[in-house]
Amino acid sequence: MISKILVPTDGSKTAQKAAKYGVDLGKQLKASVIVLSVIDQRSFIGRAVPAAETARHVIEPIEDYLREAAEGYAGEIKKMCDKNGVQSKTVITKGHPVEEIVKAAKKSKADLIVMGSHGRSALAAAVLGSVAYGVMHKDTKIPVLVVKR
Amino acid sequence: MISKILVPTDGSKTAQKAAKYGVDLGKQLKASVIVLSVIDQRSFIGRAVPAAETARHVIEPIEDYLREAAEGYAGEIKKMCDKNGVQSKTVITKGHPVEEIVKAAKKSKADLIVMGSHGRSALAAAVLGSVAYGVMHKDTKIPVLVVKR
Repeated sequence: MISKILVPTDGSKTAQKAAKYGVDLGKQLKASVIVLSVIDQRSFIGRAVPAAETARHVIEPIEDYLREAAEGYAGEIKKMCDKNGVQSKTVITKGHPVEEIVKAAKKSKADLIVMGSHGRSALAAAVLGSVAYGVMHKDTKIPVLVVKR
Repeated sequence: MISKILVPTDGSKTAQKAAKYGVDLGKQLKASVIVLSVIDQRSFIGRAVPAAETARHVIEPIEDYLREAAEGYAGEIKKMCDKNGVQSKTVITKGHPVEEIVKAAKKSKADLIVMGSHGRSALAAAVLGSVAYGVMHKDTKIPVLVVKR
């Protein structure tokens, strides 16, 4: 019995397509949807520069901007849920997308993860983008429904 | 709206797990299930020996045996459908599993493919077995729900 579906989004076109699928599925299953948007720390904490040495006045505006974007993506999907009478909740976290998706899925006891095959940072040629690949690879038993580009 | 789910099986443990998930999902969605079992020609037409030169009296008993096994796997899932009041149909084909899964999905106009991450021939270390990987890679837009080991 599927009663909770996790729908992660990075605002990409495929994520939006997957979200639509996830919401439709939630409606048909009378399941609730947890919308997750991850503030990808890799995008503002450079690998070459240790985080502690990056000036706070540089990081904060970037983080604010990313948070706003994340809330925007998640909000759109929440609206879609409302419109379809699907119970939903949005979660915004900060970290590595793969880790955060798996963590949120476990924490919320999701029965299914519905996600796009390729997100923003995906190489066009790969079968799965790095995030979908990572979630698939993680040692979690939660099934993953992959919506293709 | 998901009304038709394709459930391929090779009789492996993960395929059985995926089938159970697919049937449950079909029940909850009031969708029908198409059970597909592919007689994998690679297992009896050796790569080193051209098919035309393999004696018929060697091939036929192997093919018969594999067909019986395929019908057995599919039949078990059909029974599971019957028990759960899920409308179902079994399809037995012969060829390469990836090609046959995609072909059957298109032909039957399936809205979703529910399959195991790893089948009989999968390397334990790989994120996805070769068949799940192949179906994911194929140029078909049908979403794939992967049930893990």
